Amino acid sequence: MRTYLDCLPCIMNQTIRTARLATENEEEIREIFINVGAKLKEFDMSVPPPLSSEFLYREVSRVTGVLDPYRQIKKANIAEALALYPELKKIVQQSDNPLLTAARIAIAGNVIDLGMSKKFDIKQDVYKILQQDFGIDHFNKLETALKNAKIVLYLGDNSGESVFDKILMEEINAKIYFAVREKPIINDVTRQEAIESGIDQVAEIVSSGCTAPATILSQCNSQFLELFEQADVVISKGQGNYEGLSDANRSVFFLLKAKCHVIARDLNVNENDIVLKCIHC
Amino acid sequence: MRTYLDCLPCIMNQTIRTARLATENEEEIREIFINVGAKLKEFDMSVPPPLSSEFLYREVSRVTGVLDPYRQIKKANIAEALALYPELKKIVQQSDNPLLTAARIAIAGNVIDLGMSKKFDIKQDVYKILQQDFGIDHFNKLETALKNAKIVLYLGDNSGESVFDKILMEEINAKIYFAVREKPIINDVTRQEAIESGIDQVAEIVSSGCTAPATILSQCNSQFLELFEQADVVISKGQGNYEGLSDANRSVFFLLKAKCHVIARDLNVNENDIVLKCIHC
Repeated sequence: MRTYLDCLPCIMNQTIRTARLATENEEEIREIFINVGAKLKEFDMSVPPPLSSEFLYREVSRVTGVLDPYRQIKKANIAEALALYPELKKIVQQSDNPLLTAARIAIAGNVIDLGMSKKFDIKQDVYKILQQDFGIDHFNKLETALKNAKIVLYLGDNSGESVFDKILMEEINAKIYFAVREKPIINDVTRQEAIESGIDQVAEIVSSGCTAPATILSQCNSQFLELFEQADVVISKGQGNYEGLSDANRSVFFLLKAKCHVIARDLNVNENDIVLKCIHC
Repeated sequence: MRTYLDCLPCIMNQTIRTARLATENEEEIREIFINVGAKLKEFDMSVPPPLSSEFLYREVSRVTGVLDPYRQIKKANIAEALALYPELKKIVQQSDNPLLTAARIAIAGNVIDLGMSKKFDIKQDVYKILQQDFGIDHFNKLETALKNAKIVLYLGDNSGESVFDKILMEEINAKIYFAVREKPIINDVTRQEAIESGIDQVAEIVSSGCTAPATILSQCNSQFLELFEQADVVISKGQGNYEGLSDANRSVFFLLKAKCHVIARDLNVNENDIVLKCIHC
């Protein structure tokens, strides 16, 4: 997905939010903001927005020396999700279609997004999404594809959401690779948070090689690219991964909540719709 | 009032909103946005925010050729306010304290602010504000000051709001000068909109000389500065004029709704509070 005009003010809002999290020094925050502002002219509008926005997160780290400003929030979100895990597992086990319920729960976990300015209440939002109609519903295709799959590549998104991803992976009978970001960016799941979420119990954790908050194939390492080519099913979680892979030339199942109007428009759904969309399937 | 850090992303949001109003050409909108972004480093944080934000409105005009992008909206807001005028006049006439009710109505008119991202419903908001408690209430001082005033300088703010200002001015028994911006900026009232609002029936319209969306004394012309010095009472409407004059060294009555958290904090009130505050009185 290309960068839209509305991504630009959003990038500036992310800048001030992240800078505030890393430091209370007003001069540093101002420096970060004006540096990102000056960089706008170099943004290539034809590339996915997360590739443009990566700069702001690196600039926050460069100026403040804080490499992982979201670390404490990530830990808190994982703890909150783990506390919900037992009752969500019970809901899956008691449901008519455990795979569908687990997929809904994984999508529900996508409300935990700190790149967005929207507030969320994990527990309340999860229960709402369990009842919500899909904006796009290709679940039947996912169910069929998973029946015969030997290798599944699952692209992680946010920390905390990763616990909900585990619930979906527990319903999949295949060898699963769970891809994480190469290093901390926003609250995206890295190897550290994947392990804290218990993912290593259900999947092999691999780094995509990406440093942007998305799966951008030009940033990916060769191990990931091989998996991306060979996996029978690719499940992509969240907006960032969608932005990076919406034009991919293999089948991909996108599971997300359309939290911003730009992505909703790109997907041709309403803002806040939940989406299970596959391409090339 | 100085420029705060939170004013910077707000300025970027104003940029995209105003650019969109002036043109549908994505390239032009992008050019405006990146030019304003590059200019951030020159912003002097010690001056009032409207002085910094003026650049963005001039940049929209420079790139698009549209000198008054809010013109149609200003006309519509004035028409809507004029339609409410008869019933609001009746409310003033039937109230126990017509001056207080008229002051509340004038403050209520301050919801019409297109520099802000908040949506408003003129009629609904006016009736709500007529009942709302003040965050700061120096009405008694205003009432006393107006009793002996011969010359009142009334600083206009937004178009449409200007019709509500007329209702307050009709309760003031003095020679009134109504100050407008020198040329169009956002939806601020200029001579043209003041006349469309019927202000010339109750006051002498003067330009402050300001081209920023505020009263910035260093931008004001000599006629205005003389009035500002000699007027018995100065009534300042809205956030922009407050930002410009909060440190003035004469008595000023500020009538406004604190629509943004930066100004609310500066005034030590809650966001959305209505304020009637005087300084040096």
